[in-house]
Amino acid sequence: MAGGRSLLTILVFLAIAELGASKRYNTTAGIVAGKINVHLVPHTHDDVGWLKTVDQYYIGSNNTIQEAGVQYILDSILMYLTSNPDRKFVYVEQAFFQRWWREQTEEVQSVVKELIHSGRLELINGGWCMHDEAATHYIDMIEQTTLGHKYIKEQFGVTPRIGWQIDPFGHSAVQAYLLGAELGFDALFFARIDYQDRRQRYKDKSLEVIWQGSNTLGSDAQVFTSIFPVHYGPPDGHGLAYEESDEIPVQDDPLLFDYNVKERVDAFVAAAQSQANITRTNHIMWTMGNDFKYALAGKWFVQMDKFIHYVNLDGRVNALYSTPSMYLDAKHAADETWPLKTDDFFPYADDGKSFWTGYFTSRAAFKGYVREAARQLEFLAGRKKDGPNTDSLWDALSISQHHDGVSGTEKQHVTNDYAKRLAIGAAESDLVVKSALKALTSSSEENFVKVTFKHDIFSLERLLILQCPLLNVSFCPLTEHAKKNLVVTAYNPLGWQREDYVRIPVNEEGLVVKDASGKAVPSQLVPVSDATKRTRSYYVRANLGVAPGTPPSYWLYFKAAVPPLGVSTYYVSIGSADTATVSKFESSNGSSSIAAGFDTKLTFSSKTGHLTRISNGKSGAETPVQQSYYWYAGYAGSGQHSGAYIFLPDGQTATPVASEVSLKIVRGPLVEEVHQEVAPWIYQIFRLYKDVGHAEVEFVVGPIPVDDGIGKEVITRFTTGIPSEGVFYSDSNGRDFIKRVRDFRSDWKLEVTQPVAGNYYPVNLGVYLTDKKTDFSILVDRSVGAGSISDGQLEVMLHRRLLVDDGRGVGEALDEVVCLPQRNSSNCEGLTVQGISYINVNPVAKAARWRRYEGQKKLFPLQLYFGTTDGENKINGFTPFASGYALPENVGLITLQALDNGDALLRLAHLYEADEDEDLSKTVTVDLSKLFPGRKIKSATELSLSANQEKSNIKPLKWTIAKAGITRKSPRGAALDASKMEVELGCMEIRTIQIHFE
Amino acid sequence: MAGGRSLLTILVFLAIAELGASKRYNTTAGIVAGKINVHLVPHTHDDVGWLKTVDQYYIGSNNTIQEAGVQYILDSILMYLTSNPDRKFVYVEQAFFQRWWREQTEEVQSVVKELIHSGRLELINGGWCMHDEAATHYIDMIEQTTLGHKYIKEQFGVTPRIGWQIDPFGHSAVQAYLLGAELGFDALFFARIDYQDRRQRYKDKSLEVIWQGSNTLGSDAQVFTSIFPVHYGPPDGHGLAYEESDEIPVQDDPLLFDYNVKERVDAFVAAAQSQANITRTNHIMWTMGNDFKYALAGKWFVQMDKFIHYVNLDGRVNALYSTPSMYLDAKHAADETWPLKTDDFFPYADDGKSFWTGYFTSRAAFKGYVREAARQLEFLAGRKKDGPNTDSLWDALSISQHHDGVSGTEKQHVTNDYAKRLAIGAAESDLVVKSALKALTSSSEENFVKVTFKHDIFSLERLLILQCPLLNVSFCPLTEHAKKNLVVTAYNPLGWQREDYVRIPVNEEGLVVKDASGKAVPSQLVPVSDATKRTRSYYVRANLGVAPGTPPSYWLYFKAAVPPLGVSTYYVSIGSADTATVSKFESSNGSSSIAAGFDTKLTFSSKTGHLTRISNGKSGAETPVQQSYYWYAGYAGSGQHSGAYIFLPDGQTATPVASEVSLKIVRGPLVEEVHQEVAPWIYQIFRLYKDVGHAEVEFVVGPIPVDDGIGKEVITRFTTGIPSEGVFYSDSNGRDFIKRVRDFRSDWKLEVTQPVAGNYYPVNLGVYLTDKKTDFSILVDRSVGAGSISDGQLEVMLHRRLLVDDGRGVGEALDEVVCLPQRNSSNCEGLTVQGISYINVNPVAKAARWRRYEGQKKLFPLQLYFGTTDGENKINGFTPFASGYALPENVGLITLQALDNGDALLRLAHLYEADEDEDLSKTVTVDLSKLFPGRKIKSATELSLSANQEKSNIKPLKWTIAKAGITRKSPRGAALDASKMEVELGCMEIRTIQIHFE
Repeated sequence: MAGGRSLLTILVFLAIAELGASKRYNTTAGIVAGKINVHLVPHTHDDVGWLKTVDQYYIGSNNTIQEAGVQYILDSILMYLTSNPDRKFVYVEQAFFQRWWREQTEEVQSVVKELIHSGRLELINGGWCMHDEAATHYIDMIEQTTLGHKYIKEQFGVTPRIGWQIDPFGHSAVQAYLLGAELGFDALFFARIDYQDRRQRYKDKSLEVIWQGSNTLGSDAQVFTSIFPVHYGPPDGHGLAYEESDEIPVQDDPLLFDYNVKERVDAFVAAAQSQANITRTNHIMWTMGNDFKYALAGKWFVQMDKFIHYVNLDGRVNALYSTPSMYLDAKHAADETWPLKTDDFFPYADDGKSFWTGYFTSRAAFKGYVREAARQLEFLAGRKKDGPNTDSLWDALSISQHHDGVSGTEKQHVTNDYAKRLAIGAAESDLVVKSALKALTSSSEENFVKVTFKHDIFSLERLLILQCPLLNVSFCPLTEHAKKNLVVTAYNPLGWQREDYVRIPVNEEGLVVKDASGKAVPSQLVPVSDATKRTRSYYVRANLGVAPGTPPSYWLYFKAAVPPLGVSTYYVSIGSADTATVSKFESSNGSSSIAAGFDTKLTFSSKTGHLTRISNGKSGAETPVQQSYYWYAGYAGSGQHSGAYIFLPDGQTATPVASEVSLKIVRGPLVEEVHQEVAPWIYQIFRLYKDVGHAEVEFVVGPIPVDDGIGKEVITRFTTGIPSEGVFYSDSNGRDFIKRVRDFRSDWKLEVTQPVAGNYYPVNLGVYLTDKKTDFSILVDRSVGAGSISDGQLEVMLHRRLLVDDGRGVGEALDEVVCLPQRNSSNCEGLTVQGISYINVNPVAKAARWRRYEGQKKLFPLQLYFGTTDGENKINGFTPFASGYALPENVGLITLQALDNGDALLRLAHLYEADEDEDLSKTVTVDLSKLFPGRKIKSATELSLSANQEKSNIKPLKWTIAKAGITRKSPRGAALDASKMEVELGCMEIRTIQIHFE
Repeated sequence: MAGGRSLLTILVFLAIAELGASKRYNTTAGIVAGKINVHLVPHTHDDVGWLKTVDQYYIGSNNTIQEAGVQYILDSILMYLTSNPDRKFVYVEQAFFQRWWREQTEEVQSVVKELIHSGRLELINGGWCMHDEAATHYIDMIEQTTLGHKYIKEQFGVTPRIGWQIDPFGHSAVQAYLLGAELGFDALFFARIDYQDRRQRYKDKSLEVIWQGSNTLGSDAQVFTSIFPVHYGPPDGHGLAYEESDEIPVQDDPLLFDYNVKERVDAFVAAAQSQANITRTNHIMWTMGNDFKYALAGKWFVQMDKFIHYVNLDGRVNALYSTPSMYLDAKHAADETWPLKTDDFFPYADDGKSFWTGYFTSRAAFKGYVREAARQLEFLAGRKKDGPNTDSLWDALSISQHHDGVSGTEKQHVTNDYAKRLAIGAAESDLVVKSALKALTSSSEENFVKVTFKHDIFSLERLLILQCPLLNVSFCPLTEHAKKNLVVTAYNPLGWQREDYVRIPVNEEGLVVKDASGKAVPSQLVPVSDATKRTRSYYVRANLGVAPGTPPSYWLYFKAAVPPLGVSTYYVSIGSADTATVSKFESSNGSSSIAAGFDTKLTFSSKTGHLTRISNGKSGAETPVQQSYYWYAGYAGSGQHSGAYIFLPDGQTATPVASEVSLKIVRGPLVEEVHQEVAPWIYQIFRLYKDVGHAEVEFVVGPIPVDDGIGKEVITRFTTGIPSEGVFYSDSNGRDFIKRVRDFRSDWKLEVTQPVAGNYYPVNLGVYLTDKKTDFSILVDRSVGAGSISDGQLEVMLHRRLLVDDGRGVGEALDEVVCLPQRNSSNCEGLTVQGISYINVNPVAKAARWRRYEGQKKLFPLQLYFGTTDGENKINGFTPFASGYALPENVGLITLQALDNGDALLRLAHLYEADEDEDLSKTVTVDLSKLFPGRKIKSATELSLSANQEKSNIKPLKWTIAKAGITRKSPRGAALDASKMEVELGCMEIRTIQIHFE
């Protein structure tokens, strides 16, 4: 192997350190008091997928699309970092860094370690990617951050201090308080805020603030937040951006032409003074880098060397190599008072026509597919480090959280790549599941098939095939054509006992469903709709490449009861007694309500067919509510367009899809449905279950017609009788609810340019209206954009199909199509999106509880696995918890992970904000010993949110704030009591605990 | 300063060597017998000016035009070379390398030295640039090569072995034998040959040949020549070209997507086998690089590491890091017979419509300006290392020889940059001249002004102003408005005594010219033409930014006699006797001949005004000759265009500018002229001198009218009575004459696609027709394209103005305009070119002698310097040679350079081919002691042509040739005889001698 070193090698070593510029330039500058200090922060912004896939970006392939190869960037940075010890660099995206790291020799790794320990190379943000903040769920944000922080901790023993969300298109409250303060970050940096907001902050010198993102945690979870004056590149207009065609190098060789030291120094000083004028303290920071820069690291470092040398000789300002940490510490050391910021930075607009609220919904099918995880079962199965394990799923999910991933702002082939990774991860996890179920049950392993009935995967290219990934379109050969008796195993990822209705496609009547004890449970057969049959026929061919055969006749519904984190099995067979009730479609015949006997009743207009009222018999809450589908025409004329990023309707009025809709009703003992074919391309089913306090609204939207040349953005709009007075509430990353006031921003006087798009907000859990007496709520099954454009109204954007690009870089129209295996124009059609919304009306006192409880259930649905049995081996239910124990209702189990050393990583979340629910917005205790009854806990350590340091190590910086902040409204839970193994959680508290077993 | 090294630095050093790939890849492969050996030769092709200026390319500025910065390329190469000792690189352009080298620390320099000494970095070609081979004079080629080789020798003690002319647009015989073999190169590599030629060579496996470029030196000056199969990048179509959007990296990380090792190895092997099929021996070479590549050196080296590793594991072929030297040695070691190649590779066509014969003339004004040098005076003045000296002129002239320099294929702003460099170089040289003249004469230094009367500089942007650079347009305030008596000092750069007519613009009549002894010499006043006055008015304003004032009335002509390398002074004053004869314009009045009393007579048609006959009274030779101007329309329709590179006439017929032209005659005792205004944009003067055996044809062409939307390529065509039978002769870089046969190539059966453009050849000295009895010759004052499209005809392209780009990269139409200082459209006009051709008719036995002798005089014209005197201090003439000594007529002094150590570098050239002249094609001797009579010669060492090694060190490789080569027709001169200090020169021999003085 190429190894033999000679004297030359030694000489090389001695020389490299001086390469570039170091000898001639004094680059040692530190901070100088009394001067404007220009902190030069070298960085590269490497998207974990966007125009190319993550691996294409890493390898540097597919350069026809974009010239970028992160492996070379990291090589180049390392070389230039080592050649001048004054130089510094910050690197962000661990998905790339770790790909590179594992390729390096031990020698290089030891160099990198030394660079990191000496602060010359600082890993900041440190998650797997720079996650999106609108279309991400807080659990996914935590998980992807944890993955990156885990490696950083293992390899370097360090914990990142700096949040660096420089590119996401708006910033969430959860990012600030949870993924910022609670993570242990000392500061958060980013670039994108509303253009009006920015203008105001220039005037107020308020680009740097103390941000308190949580109403519950308040000043106890605040973070210093620095917003860049323009964007995350060097100052504009001075030729300071390298690897760009308009760069202007410092030419200081008098023997060559175009010597320009004075002009360059003047430009530098001018840019510095300009920024200093809008910045508090005499420290300003320049982000010296940009997208995929530093392939030619020398260009940047040599120029910065020269600037530091010549600018400091000039003396008007002081330039230095720096990092965000150094900059932060300088800010902190200054005797300065900082403005207070609360709530969040949504929506983001970069001009009056450009509200980045389209991406809240873009690629709705993919957004649905991302909501998938089954990692707890690894813990139950016992982690195998060398697989099969859930690492690839963790990786795939983490990559997908990228701000051009789940956001939907990447190119189509990149979406396909994310989906492929998720499918591969899911397949490997499936082996884990099989292994777990084998251990937990005594059934034959062979026929287990994992299925979820929650997500469509319509947008995905042909997948690595799971056996029933298309259950939601009624495709599951095993259940459709079972020759033997069917075993349905349901896994419950919640820490609570639950009962949930499940459904599977079947062909026969006369089926009986029995539980593990052999007792028949009630069941009902509901006809499969023509719409479902149609999507089944198309998508099975499109995704699996096979003809799906004759569609099943029925959905078989029954209710499964499953213990916490446990499994229950049910048996379906042809029987003679207790067989499933067969329901048929009825015409409405003037009948205008369904499920009168259930908890919630829906009433429909016999004239128009539209929903007119929702009422909850148990609570007595009710409201008139009209529901219709509309579409906004995506603006495609001159100038700004509506596209993947931006929602720009052509006019402020949405067009109704249908003024009247037909009704078909299914009635029965367990479930009742209203089917509505709203248009040839919109089908919806209202579904009510016995003993369930809300309605499901299942929708099938697409292919959105664009024959008229008009791109369409499809919404469902609920018009209630609730006098909402301009206000509605939407969640922040599925966690806190934030009050949204129409045409209003708390930080500046809003000039309204887009009455619709400018009032859209990202939603991950749900939205609601209230009049302080009654709440009307919608929960969602994926991230969407939603708004309340008129009082009493809520609208949710479900699907978007647009015909032109909106000019923010992706370079593709958001025109998702799905093709049959033989691709040609006649074999492709626009993407269809299928999903479910959950609606309810509640007395205000009960509404939060419903939202939190059902939200948790929808986020962690029952996972179904199918097998067949000869009818003999009855399988018993199982829970790992102590018998009869379940987590309190206000505590969610959000992580249960097996660590390589055999420890468990447990994350528990209090699900309620202070004052949200009279009973549940209270401190609560979990008994760890009940969670692991079969194992002896040696000790438990509380960690930071990303599990990379002991919680007690976090020492938040103190800041002086201009006006009073938010007082913490619920105390933190007490420190872990090793003797009692009890974990106490205050409202909205998340505790991350590593449990060491004996 | 940033210097403090720590333990970290040491670690870095230990690690860097492993960066990239080295540990995992076995890259140690050498040659393997019995396999196809793929020599991977990493290189970058860095144009010394093209789309950007040389300094912009070096610095990396002006990247809007092209992203390229050579300093970063060299940094990057060094880093990756040092990190794996198996890697190799060849670097070519010393203009860049030396810019970089002097910026490096001693440590880096020592690393580079070690890399060079170990063969890992090889400097090949090694000239200042990769010179053009068509528009360059052999003396300039030698000089620019010498400049580069000098530094390489001084810094590294090495002598390049490899000629690497990979990009020039056709290849000259002089390149092969003189700049190849005589330089000591063992091989010559290049890419561009005629597409039909290439096709034939594929079939014959004759891309590699032994090239004997000289009919005189024959096999004694042959060189192994390797023509690349396609171009100088990696093999096409396999994604092997990096830093390109279609590159396909080897992806060998099984943890990432798109693992492709097998596909990539297959592609590599396929490309290798394909090339092996057209190559002799089992060695093939891949040029792994391209224009300005290796900014991301890692992309190339890491990929090559992987290929060497995986391809050799595969085993079908053997891949190795190599250099052209290693490849050459492998070829030489093989037992193989090689095809013979004689003559040259002009013209070059890359398809049937694309003959690269336009650039022979492109930027004719600049081509004229490049022909300037006055470096010998430095020797006479005594070299001052720290200036003023001629180094900047040497540098500027060397840069200008680049194949996108004097070729005219660079962007306009780059031409301007070359010209600016030349002007600066000339200005510094001017100080040297002043110093020399001060030493040599006793005149006052202050008023010396350097002038040449040979070149226009119309194309140039405003120059650093010399005092009379515009003498050729009759602008010289000192002579026009002298208040005191004028001193004219003429310097003769030739080694011969000479007599030449000089002319200066004056206003008065009644002037007398006296020599240094006070004796009046005959003189004549000739009226300045209106055309000259017009160009004077425009170009003085355009170039100097000042109004030139009233134009002078007359040119004052007189004959100056100057000793070898000497100066003579003449005094011009108002006198009473022996005053200049005043000539006036006469109308032709039926008179149809001029200069009947001189040696040569020209006869004109009284009907059309055209020249009809040239006759030499002394020799009796004569021929009818008609002369007219024509233009070809540059093709600008669909597909290929005529442009800076390519001459593609729209049809094969040229349009005559005028069927009849007026005549104005000037008669007199010394000079007679015929003035013809051919068109408003073409003015020409036939000029004959008493006792001079040829005619001058001074032309002023431009602005070429393009109002009709047609780009025009202007030729002068001489139609003689000589039955030339398809043959004419053109020189190779001003040295050997090569027989050109119309519609014929010696190496393959030509398919004629372009009857005109395909018969154009580059000319630097001249062209001639012969019928074995009478020769008709044209000598040129700059490089041009010329051809003989019909028997008896010679045509020379003088100027080109084209309106569209021809698609070979420069991206500009060759539409040169000149603007007055306040630039706007009305202040600009097309470039005017002014120059002189020399025509003659001779008996065949005397023709060569005239061409060689006059050619040398035109190449080294008298240099004039002006001063004023009070009339008292008479200045004596001077020659450094021994009294009465001059070089033999068949020996040219081509270099006399003062070296830093006080030595002299002398280059003498025998000017005649074997059999060219009965008397002069003979071995001749020069007595060195006579050249330096005032100094004692200690010893003299003969060096190689580029003066970088002792001549005796050159040991040419022996090759087996398929058919008999050319036997040397004239023996080399004997080795230097130290006792006699005599240098013997055989025909066409050039001897380079370093003279050490005591």
